[in-house]
Amino acid sequence: MMICTALVFFMHLGFAFLEIGLTRQKNTINILFKNIFIITVGLLLYALVGFNLMYPNWGANSAGYLGDFIFGISEPLKNGTLDLAYNQGYTYWTDFLFQGMFAATAATIVSGAVAERMKILPFMIFTVLYVGFVYPIAGSWKWGGGFLDQLATPFYDFAGSTLVHSVGGWAALVAVSLLGARIGKFENGKTQAIPGHNIPIATAGVLILWLGWFGFNGGSVLSADPELTSITLVTTCLAAAAGGVVAVLASTIMYKNLDLTMFLNGILGGLVGITAGADQMSPMDAILIGAVAGVLIVFAVSLIDKLKLDDPVGAIAVHLVCGIWGTLAVGLFGNLASGAQFLSQLIGVACYAVFCIATSFIIIFTLKKTIGIRVSEKEEVEGLDAHEHGMDAYPDFRLNEY
Amino acid sequence: MMICTALVFFMHLGFAFLEIGLTRQKNTINILFKNIFIITVGLLLYALVGFNLMYPNWGANSAGYLGDFIFGISEPLKNGTLDLAYNQGYTYWTDFLFQGMFAATAATIVSGAVAERMKILPFMIFTVLYVGFVYPIAGSWKWGGGFLDQLATPFYDFAGSTLVHSVGGWAALVAVSLLGARIGKFENGKTQAIPGHNIPIATAGVLILWLGWFGFNGGSVLSADPELTSITLVTTCLAAAAGGVVAVLASTIMYKNLDLTMFLNGILGGLVGITAGADQMSPMDAILIGAVAGVLIVFAVSLIDKLKLDDPVGAIAVHLVCGIWGTLAVGLFGNLASGAQFLSQLIGVACYAVFCIATSFIIIFTLKKTIGIRVSEKEEVEGLDAHEHGMDAYPDFRLNEY
Amino acid sequence: MMICTALVFFMHLGFAFLEIGLTRQKNTINILFKNIFIITVGLLLYALVGFNLMYPNWGANSAGYLGDFIFGISEPLKNGTLDLAYNQGYTYWTDFLFQGMFAATAATIVSGAVAERMKILPFMIFTVLYVGFVYPIAGSWKWGGGFLDQLATPFYDFAGSTLVHSVGGWAALVAVSLLGARIGKFENGKTQAIPGHNIPIATAGVLILWLGWFGFNGGSVLSADPELTSITLVTTCLAAAAGGVVAVLASTIMYKNLDLTMFLNGILGGLVGITAGADQMSPMDAILIGAVAGVLIVFAVSLIDKLKLDDPVGAIAVHLVCGIWGTLAVGLFGNLASGAQFLSQLIGVACYAVFCIATSFIIIFTLKKTIGIRVSEKEEVEGLDAHEHGMDAYPDFRLNEY
Repeated sequence: MMICTALVFFMHLGFAFLEIGLTRQKNTINILFKNIFIITVGLLLYALVGFNLMYPNWGANSAGYLGDFIFGISEPLKNGTLDLAYNQGYTYWTDFLFQGMFAATAATIVSGAVAERMKILPFMIFTVLYVGFVYPIAGSWKWGGGFLDQLATPFYDFAGSTLVHSVGGWAALVAVSLLGARIGKFENGKTQAIPGHNIPIATAGVLILWLGWFGFNGGSVLSADPELTSITLVTTCLAAAAGGVVAVLASTIMYKNLDLTMFLNGILGGLVGITAGADQMSPMDAILIGAVAGVLIVFAVSLIDKLKLDDPVGAIAVHLVCGIWGTLAVGLFGNLASGAQFLSQLIGVACYAVFCIATSFIIIFTLKKTIGIRVSEKEEVEGLDAHEHGMDAYPDFRLNEY
Repeated sequence: MMICTALVFFMHLGFAFLEIGLTRQKNTINILFKNIFIITVGLLLYALVGFNLMYPNWGANSAGYLGDFIFGISEPLKNGTLDLAYNQGYTYWTDFLFQGMFAATAATIVSGAVAERMKILPFMIFTVLYVGFVYPIAGSWKWGGGFLDQLATPFYDFAGSTLVHSVGGWAALVAVSLLGARIGKFENGKTQAIPGHNIPIATAGVLILWLGWFGFNGGSVLSADPELTSITLVTTCLAAAAGGVVAVLASTIMYKNLDLTMFLNGILGGLVGITAGADQMSPMDAILIGAVAGVLIVFAVSLIDKLKLDDPVGAIAVHLVCGIWGTLAVGLFGNLASGAQFLSQLIGVACYAVFCIATSFIIIFTLKKTIGIRVSEKEEVEGLDAHEHGMDAYPDFRLNEY
Repeated sequence: MMICTALVFFMHLGFAFLEIGLTRQKNTINILFKNIFIITVGLLLYALVGFNLMYPNWGANSAGYLGDFIFGISEPLKNGTLDLAYNQGYTYWTDFLFQGMFAATAATIVSGAVAERMKILPFMIFTVLYVGFVYPIAGSWKWGGGFLDQLATPFYDFAGSTLVHSVGGWAALVAVSLLGARIGKFENGKTQAIPGHNIPIATAGVLILWLGWFGFNGGSVLSADPELTSITLVTTCLAAAAGGVVAVLASTIMYKNLDLTMFLNGILGGLVGITAGADQMSPMDAILIGAVAGVLIVFAVSLIDKLKLDDPVGAIAVHLVCGIWGTLAVGLFGNLASGAQFLSQLIGVACYAVFCIATSFIIIFTLKKTIGIRVSEKEEVEGLDAHEHGMDAYPDFRLNEY
């Protein structure tokens, strides 16, 4: 379990690598700064606010919509004095850290979608509000034992296809809509590919994320039941493999080139897709769920482009589209498949959609109308690294001009 | 055990990093694509075909040469219905994933040796056949309880010096022979070094591989016996260290410069060398085995050059030469050392040599005579990335011309 | 525990990435070579000399200042014959490997401080002496049960703020003083920033180090008590987060730019700071200790510059200053806080200061007066890679001229 927490922590390097790899070198420092900010501030916020908000002591008559506002992580007391090793300590502290590592992920997803053009200050404010408050409140509805967990057929989300990935994905969709596309992305009615600057780093990012998913899904078998954990890892890996292979097949058929980026996004789509039901599926179910995610990725990326939404790393396709697919798939495949379950999954997806769209819109729209969310045209062209950080990611290398 | 599986999975990033680091930037996307293909397709194949082929229910009178052809991973049934958590489940699923991660490695070794000049389609076909069929059949002879495991003094290969590394190494040797050298490697009777494009990434690859070996050798103590696992990790690390130090010493004496690449290959040689007997050696045995591997690397690299075989990453020296050495060393050092054991080790090495050379020759020679295995001269000079993938690994950086 | 050892091993990649990222590309091979040398030679030395020196069988009347000089790692015997799985084996071998991974760290810290201008041969000699002898003797005083462990109120250093980080930090300070600054660092009375060449790699290094600290601090709970391990990981992560956030806040206030490097060094400072008492602190203590470390980093980096000491990666600020802070903090916060404890901590810090300054001065000063420790001006300007290794880290990329 503690090792799983370490692996989930390491996913943040995966996200950072993926995001910088798929964007231009002139914004690299900015992206790294955002990612480091998300991890550190996310952990502190989760300690100070989030954990109590997400795992509240619901009163007996609570409807289960809103958790406890208590400042500071509660500390285990024995006979009134602090005792760090007190009885329930093990689960308590490990859970805190494991969940704290998750919390930051929602903001990371948004970071990728808004890369290369969003000002750093409003992004930091958004992160504080979304990670500190929106994510734990939304999380409490299911993992905190709230109303979605109290449905007749409880909503099921094993490790966060909805609670983590869609929560980030909806905010990414809202942010991208309010922010507009990067200069040059959609010009004269044409969609221009803006290639990332370091594909090996992006590839490494995906493999690190896959590794992290061993901890993400493996660790979510909270009891560390060895049988269930091992089947969970098998379904996770098979879905990832199927997602990648199918995405690259589909994109090769459609576009006639062996597209590595699509391979990578297919893997991630498969991983996000299996996350909601990783412990409930047979290996063949997992391969099917991953394969569908692979197809969805290819079409979603194309659709998002057609909608003139500019998502540099494909975060919406991966985390939102495949997150929804994975959540619904719990009602269609595996041990829980039933009409009632599918309905509960739909209800869950809808509740998170409404709440996340509303809250992220309020936050980002307010920021847009006050301090502004987009860098100036000059800053965007010259790069955020020079203007926001006064640093260069690779000072010794000669770079192509844009 | 599950963590070990995660570490073995992570080795694939190590292999990818090593291979791209030691080759030119213009073929980077191609190499990453191959590696991602190997992992994903390898896992799916192992689920669909390989696992049953490698761990068969040998009939009572079976000679133990060929396992079961059953499509689809068998699923544990209880009273005729699927029960994912059924009794034997733990070992079963974890074993599958652990072994599935190994399976792909054989193709990865070949990938490094044929880098920068082999067409992608025949490589993909080779991978499917070699990982899906040759590797598991060969593996069943020992790990599946086949005829090499049934010798009077059973052949011993703890974690795959022969079953994994030589199996890949023989195919690499065959492939390199059939493919020919890269343009410019051997010209006017001179051997030209073609430097890799990113040595930090290659170095990271080696350290990631070393980390993965903690899982590779550690996890092969299937029972997770803590005493045996810890001595196994000690021998693994000491052999790696000795291999590196001795290789760099030898190469400094011979060539008068402190060659980082030789240091790295020496470490890998030490790791491959200890793999066959990591659980049977004392620390001093391990240091000796690693040291010999370090010397072998330096001479093998030089010999392979003299034979006009072009192996861009040194795969044959590392995986084949040190794989054979490590396998034989089980008969010479440690708990099992005896004349009878040495003979069994020789028999094992010979059986794998014949089978792997024959099968890989049939596959690659057939591909050569049908669809062809080598890219055109123009494609090789301009790089496989542009021609096979239409992508560039580092679009923002200015590159030197060749 | 074995997994923790793997994570601590992986820290060496973190150190290597951090160091090459924060220095210029022309010295990259040199740095990688040094780091690989440190790991491999460090492990071998620890097996041959260090372990017995650090964990001696103190005689009944021993003062506890100097351990056993026994060549070769002792091997467990049962009835006079080697038995690798003998009873005490588990703790014995795992301890050896875990501690062996630590040992090399002290030299790594020095490597960063002397980067870009120290000759490789004297650095290798220094490493052998410091890792092989100085570190284990110093370590025996506390972890080997020596005199600092026998104080009335024993000196406390959970995972090495002093025993590892300060031991390296003092030597770094001495080495930098004897070596002088890089050409161009302090010219015409001005301090010139010399930017590193690959900030993404440096950032990855810090995240890998943070990951390694899960093993470093987690594994130091030698008994693998799950409650204590989990609180230890919580304090570790919160101190890291607080260190980073406070450092970037302080540096933004002072210098008006969002400095990623300071963020990274703040995280490392927080990690080093919590290391001495990670198992004794509450989460709020940890945040406070990390925050103070974050402030210390910003001021220490500025002070070291003013003293005209050239430390390219900030090793002295991170490992020495925060190492001292963390050691003293054990007497000020958490379960052990008391006047007597603070005094013991001060005594410990002073003893290590005297011993490490003296030994490292003798070694490095002797090297300076005999074979010399600094490369020629020409070599420094053209880079150590070309002159000491005859290799280039990135041969395919065009580089800016200096």
